[in-house]
Amino acid sequence: MATVLAQPSSTHTPSLARRFTEIRNTTVGITEGLTAEDQMVQSMPDASPTKWHLAHTTWFFETFILEPYGDGYKPFDPRFRHLFNSYYKQLGSHPLRGTRGLMSRPTLPQVHAYRAHVDNALLAILEHAQEEVLKRVELGLHHEQQHQELLLTDLKHALWSNPLRPEPSTEMTDATAPSAMRWTEVDGGIHLIGHRGEGFAFDNESPQHQVLLQPFRIASRDVTNAEYLEFIEDGGYRRPELWLSDGWDTVSAQGWNAPLYWERCDDGGWWQFVRQGRKKVHPAEPVCHVSYFEADAYARWRGARLPSEQEWEVTAVRMPSSGTFLEDRIFHPQPAQGEGNQQMFGDVWVWTSSPYIAYPGFRPAAGFLGEYNGKFMCNQLVLRGGSCVTPRSHIRPTYRNFFPPHARWQFTGLRLAQ
Amino acid sequence: MATVLAQPSSTHTPSLARRFTEIRNTTVGITEGLTAEDQMVQSMPDASPTKWHLAHTTWFFETFILEPYGDGYKPFDPRFRHLFNSYYKQLGSHPLRGTRGLMSRPTLPQVHAYRAHVDNALLAILEHAQEEVLKRVELGLHHEQQHQELLLTDLKHALWSNPLRPEPSTEMTDATAPSAMRWTEVDGGIHLIGHRGEGFAFDNESPQHQVLLQPFRIASRDVTNAEYLEFIEDGGYRRPELWLSDGWDTVSAQGWNAPLYWERCDDGGWWQFVRQGRKKVHPAEPVCHVSYFEADAYARWRGARLPSEQEWEVTAVRMPSSGTFLEDRIFHPQPAQGEGNQQMFGDVWVWTSSPYIAYPGFRPAAGFLGEYNGKFMCNQLVLRGGSCVTPRSHIRPTYRNFFPPHARWQFTGLRLAQ
Amino acid sequence: MATVLAQPSSTHTPSLARRFTEIRNTTVGITEGLTAEDQMVQSMPDASPTKWHLAHTTWFFETFILEPYGDGYKPFDPRFRHLFNSYYKQLGSHPLRGTRGLMSRPTLPQVHAYRAHVDNALLAILEHAQEEVLKRVELGLHHEQQHQELLLTDLKHALWSNPLRPEPSTEMTDATAPSAMRWTEVDGGIHLIGHRGEGFAFDNESPQHQVLLQPFRIASRDVTNAEYLEFIEDGGYRRPELWLSDGWDTVSAQGWNAPLYWERCDDGGWWQFVRQGRKKVHPAEPVCHVSYFEADAYARWRGARLPSEQEWEVTAVRMPSSGTFLEDRIFHPQPAQGEGNQQMFGDVWVWTSSPYIAYPGFRPAAGFLGEYNGKFMCNQLVLRGGSCVTPRSHIRPTYRNFFPPHARWQFTGLRLAQ
Amino acid sequence: MATVLAQPSSTHTPSLARRFTEIRNTTVGITEGLTAEDQMVQSMPDASPTKWHLAHTTWFFETFILEPYGDGYKPFDPRFRHLFNSYYKQLGSHPLRGTRGLMSRPTLPQVHAYRAHVDNALLAILEHAQEEVLKRVELGLHHEQQHQELLLTDLKHALWSNPLRPEPSTEMTDATAPSAMRWTEVDGGIHLIGHRGEGFAFDNESPQHQVLLQPFRIASRDVTNAEYLEFIEDGGYRRPELWLSDGWDTVSAQGWNAPLYWERCDDGGWWQFVRQGRKKVHPAEPVCHVSYFEADAYARWRGARLPSEQEWEVTAVRMPSSGTFLEDRIFHPQPAQGEGNQQMFGDVWVWTSSPYIAYPGFRPAAGFLGEYNGKFMCNQLVLRGGSCVTPRSHIRPTYRNFFPPHARWQFTGLRLAQ
Repeated sequence: MATVLAQPSSTHTPSLARRFTEIRNTTVGITEGLTAEDQMVQSMPDASPTKWHLAHTTWFFETFILEPYGDGYKPFDPRFRHLFNSYYKQLGSHPLRGTRGLMSRPTLPQVHAYRAHVDNALLAILEHAQEEVLKRVELGLHHEQQHQELLLTDLKHALWSNPLRPEPSTEMTDATAPSAMRWTEVDGGIHLIGHRGEGFAFDNESPQHQVLLQPFRIASRDVTNAEYLEFIEDGGYRRPELWLSDGWDTVSAQGWNAPLYWERCDDGGWWQFVRQGRKKVHPAEPVCHVSYFEADAYARWRGARLPSEQEWEVTAVRMPSSGTFLEDRIFHPQPAQGEGNQQMFGDVWVWTSSPYIAYPGFRPAAGFLGEYNGKFMCNQLVLRGGSCVTPRSHIRPTYRNFFPPHARWQFTGLRLAQ
Repeated sequence: MATVLAQPSSTHTPSLARRFTEIRNTTVGITEGLTAEDQMVQSMPDASPTKWHLAHTTWFFETFILEPYGDGYKPFDPRFRHLFNSYYKQLGSHPLRGTRGLMSRPTLPQVHAYRAHVDNALLAILEHAQEEVLKRVELGLHHEQQHQELLLTDLKHALWSNPLRPEPSTEMTDATAPSAMRWTEVDGGIHLIGHRGEGFAFDNESPQHQVLLQPFRIASRDVTNAEYLEFIEDGGYRRPELWLSDGWDTVSAQGWNAPLYWERCDDGGWWQFVRQGRKKVHPAEPVCHVSYFEADAYARWRGARLPSEQEWEVTAVRMPSSGTFLEDRIFHPQPAQGEGNQQMFGDVWVWTSSPYIAYPGFRPAAGFLGEYNGKFMCNQLVLRGGSCVTPRSHIRPTYRNFFPPHARWQFTGLRLAQ
Repeated sequence: MATVLAQPSSTHTPSLARRFTEIRNTTVGITEGLTAEDQMVQSMPDASPTKWHLAHTTWFFETFILEPYGDGYKPFDPRFRHLFNSYYKQLGSHPLRGTRGLMSRPTLPQVHAYRAHVDNALLAILEHAQEEVLKRVELGLHHEQQHQELLLTDLKHALWSNPLRPEPSTEMTDATAPSAMRWTEVDGGIHLIGHRGEGFAFDNESPQHQVLLQPFRIASRDVTNAEYLEFIEDGGYRRPELWLSDGWDTVSAQGWNAPLYWERCDDGGWWQFVRQGRKKVHPAEPVCHVSYFEADAYARWRGARLPSEQEWEVTAVRMPSSGTFLEDRIFHPQPAQGEGNQQMFGDVWVWTSSPYIAYPGFRPAAGFLGEYNGKFMCNQLVLRGGSCVTPRSHIRPTYRNFFPPHARWQFTGLRLAQ
Repeated sequence: MATVLAQPSSTHTPSLARRFTEIRNTTVGITEGLTAEDQMVQSMPDASPTKWHLAHTTWFFETFILEPYGDGYKPFDPRFRHLFNSYYKQLGSHPLRGTRGLMSRPTLPQVHAYRAHVDNALLAILEHAQEEVLKRVELGLHHEQQHQELLLTDLKHALWSNPLRPEPSTEMTDATAPSAMRWTEVDGGIHLIGHRGEGFAFDNESPQHQVLLQPFRIASRDVTNAEYLEFIEDGGYRRPELWLSDGWDTVSAQGWNAPLYWERCDDGGWWQFVRQGRKKVHPAEPVCHVSYFEADAYARWRGARLPSEQEWEVTAVRMPSSGTFLEDRIFHPQPAQGEGNQQMFGDVWVWTSSPYIAYPGFRPAAGFLGEYNGKFMCNQLVLRGGSCVTPRSHIRPTYRNFFPPHARWQFTGLRLAQ
């Protein structure tokens, strides 16, 4: 496990217990107002029910910490070991991903009891925990924060999939007008990429290493809905020469003609579905819920390209950056405004042009924790920055998110480079 | 609509109101003990969630009676007209069948409120209802009874699909030993088939008509588990010459080697899943959850055949018949024992050799109610008799149930003929 | 095998040899003008390449006659036993049906050599053949005639599937104007159905048996293109209430809006593809290449229905009947014109309302020949009469052809009843 | 187009005509001995028929040179423009890829006539051709060489897919014993990658650019069959922890347990299918027909990894390298033996760890030729080196071949790095 955490710190035990409680409570907090039925929907195989997220994050602590290190720990229900395993092959079999919506049992109250059982046991051993346990708890908390975002993302899709979607909310505030887009010039040369070792990072952010970049230009902010609408109106979804071959096949097969969750109003404008209902597409907000295929086609149509993940990271690390956190604001109630490159963090994940592969010298963790990241390094693209549903403490410049190029139910947008 | 009900009776208004209340309450009664989550599972596209059955049966009364005849009736929620339409094309579109499990909303309490709203409105107009309304209420009640059986059948499949299946119950009583199977000889000649016109019947049971039958022999009772096990042990599932071509393709593709819900015990015997848990396969009980393909192959292996629906009906009408109602007994708490042909009613539906087609002179009802039966007359086989989850008052000798030949999640068995 | 042939005749050995040679030559004759490439196309899994038909019909004689009865017979190539088995499970495995188009080897000349090898061996043993051999040769010849029709039917589909379709032929003669459609009244009562035992018949045409029919009316001729066009123009393909449920699903999924092989001309009229090219849809010709779903919907739209197979047979046997043999005329160069019910034979196969099931008392032949007919008695409908590509000597009033309800690449049309 | 060819040379007109004739003749030469039927097989959607390759390469010259530049050129058949378009969307529609095996027409002789027609017209204009035409001819010849390899690769798969596979050849010579594998150390630092501009290169090999590499070690030769067998025997195909997640899904779904074309002998050894028949797997030959998933899993099992494309190229350019050209030797009759890194060229394509993306500053060619390479830059991995069926003059150190990670019908192997 040591290789997963770049620099473990053994002195933060008290704050770890406090953070454990806070983060675990946050997860439950974002399910407030949802019925047990809402929390059971699996609207597509890629998405998971809310209840499953609640249980799986608990399973992580039970399986990787309480079972090996919790002296005399008695599992809440031995069958959960199999039931809430997501994909760890070395732990044995797991249910087919697409059947998570069939689990009426355990019930939601039972899952909450499971959470309490594990939380109590974990807090008990945390007081006198050895180094390895602390590291694993830290990892488990970051794992839980990932699932907080996934939970919100999957829930949005679940509510949208129901013919009885939430009613429109009229209280939504408008986004402020975007600043004009400027190009930021960045010099070429040798840059340092990857996590430097202070604080937590996933194994895939290491080792830190040098890369040689050409000089490049990167946009001062993300592409807006208004800009993306020009692409739509110019026939962008009907012109094969703008698309990757796989992208065009997807557009044709799926009948895409706008980002996910958009639909035309009667007056010719566009609505978009948000978790609380629907609202008019605001021209100043960053475009969201586009796939890599769409991001790439848009950039080609503009005569630009997507930045590589290295270009994005160099920009984010070296420049004063801020986020405006427009749509959802679950984790970002006070949008930061500032100079510099806007929206590097916390509005939308931006697709980079970089396939998700290992950094030079990367070695996954030993044992089953090695299945966390490395085994997905194929047919995925790196996303950077974090979105409005990413917990703020979970965002950092070296963070590497990844999804396949057709995915668009995540909060994904783009930024141009040249 | 007049053609749907063979002989409407305008004098039973009081009893109709009482029966309406009874049958509606029965439906809710059989969902007792189930959580809202249990009632939302759709384990395969052919099956529907319990909550959907509760809503759809209500939709039937609202759409076909309250909307056209309920003076000033205000729909509970206008969107339900679309949402809980099962397949009536003339009523406009309906959600894809396979997405019924995504409907976290309306919630279960909302569906119960919907039921109460419709029940009250319907009872109010029933007092002074015209003939056509009475007929439609009668039809709606039989429709509801059909869904009581489907609800129990689908629920069994839902609970079985969950890795956390109900725990075995140890209280189950054994079936009594079966009588020896005898052949009943029936003379050939002209027989009368179909509903004679007293009491309710569906349109597909009419018109009553004459058929010319060859002399035949029919078994005195259904095929038992013990008899079916001989077929399994003789390699029945591995011998293509015993099967219809489509049947063999299904066996091969699905890997069938026993009835649905059966699994081998460690001691070489067999368990079967029942709604309350699992129990040993009892040799004396009628075999259940076999497809037409399996029923047909078994009969061929025995050197016999399945009866036609006419042969079955002639036997059931003319001979003293009884049911033993073994497994579930929801609707049949006191198994009737008697002479004559056992198990004609209320144990398992028996597959007949008859494809489901129209009787000579059949005309479906005018308007959307004509979509009730006739449009399914293709690629289905007729089943007769009713099962242990068929409401007793819903069973009659002329009743024609129908399913495609591969279906086996219904309570379906077989009886031999020669 | 005895049960397959209703009444074998042991005295026609000389004519059998002559007929054998004639029928085998006819098969090769209808492939004249086709390249080896044309003869290798498999345009869909349901259709087979011409070369495969040439080989499979030969395999039938080799497998069922020469191997068991050809004393000292040496197979042309032992691997062909597996290679050209169509579906006889008792003979072991066979290649997946959809891969027949991959068999570049054996080459066409090798298949012709295979035919010559088998023909010579078979003629040699025919001189002193025992009864069983004669019966099997007879069966093999009828099997070959079936494949002559399938070959032409599949070839039409293959040529149509090629973007370079044959050029239009301008020499096609028009059909004569159809007579007005009249209704023929037929009395009810007990009728005799099935093959009486003189001459060859397949096992599924026996045993002859009595049926009780209601009085009915049947059209004097098949439905014409002009009549079917009225259905199209009345929105027949867009009105779900006219269709069986499975039929409507098929129409929606496949985008059907006319019979197979039809396409609209620029002037709003319709072309149809025929094997030699394409020609204008002629209003007087019987409509062809419609599925059972379309035939059934058309009849419903007309306020009529399809005849049962018994009704059709009673009409064909008792009334003077004739065919006009319009489109293709491969086997019917001189269209017979006459009084009585036209087109009972040799224009298009007509869909009946009868699912394909066993006659009362039917027993399939023992051994692998029992796989010929009986195992397909599920999810198929009976067709009667024979088409313009059915060899004339292969047509008889009791013949039961069968296809699933969505099939329409066969030469299939319809006739109304009431 | 200018950007496609890094450095066009206008002075080699005579040799271009000669090379044109040679390369065009080579294509036809490798189809000798194949029947028209062999040349029509499409054994899977990814593979194309031989006849299609013959026509499509001709279509390239006709469409991109003769139509725009061949003054007064009359197309051989205007329908071919659509028919033999592979994927160029800007040229309009094209037939579905999976239907190429249905084209019995045009016949093989017609395709040969098409080739002659285009060859004559092209040679005629070549004498006084402008610069752009010369560049496009050069591109067309490299395109044709690519298809020579694809033709041989697809043909192997087609012959293997036929139950009547070619008989084993006994004349095959054994490979010589491999040298022991050594690690070659390469220094880190800044290296130059990409085509320098002399001679032909595809657009995706440019622009030449600097990269910063870490020090690395690379194997002196490819992984052999003997080495790969150790992986198989160690349960490599049954251990999920060795595989990428998508790889394991593929192994499970496809039932892979060895490279493509391998099958176990009765004595426990292994056969492999080669185009002329089958032969024993030779321990000293490089393993071939493995997917990226298998190459990656093998490397992980060995405690090593695959080289990046940059590492491979740096090794190939700077070190004395040679190929041994083991299996097929169509284009490499005299295997070169030498010191240095063996098998860099001409034995098997080696999978690199590099996803196929654009080089920094890459711009695809303008117009439809821009569809040649760039639009496939997604979900593919780079392969380097060329195989025994790659034309020798088509091999160069900067060449970037690419296939998706599950593909294994190409001649693909691997080399280890650390």
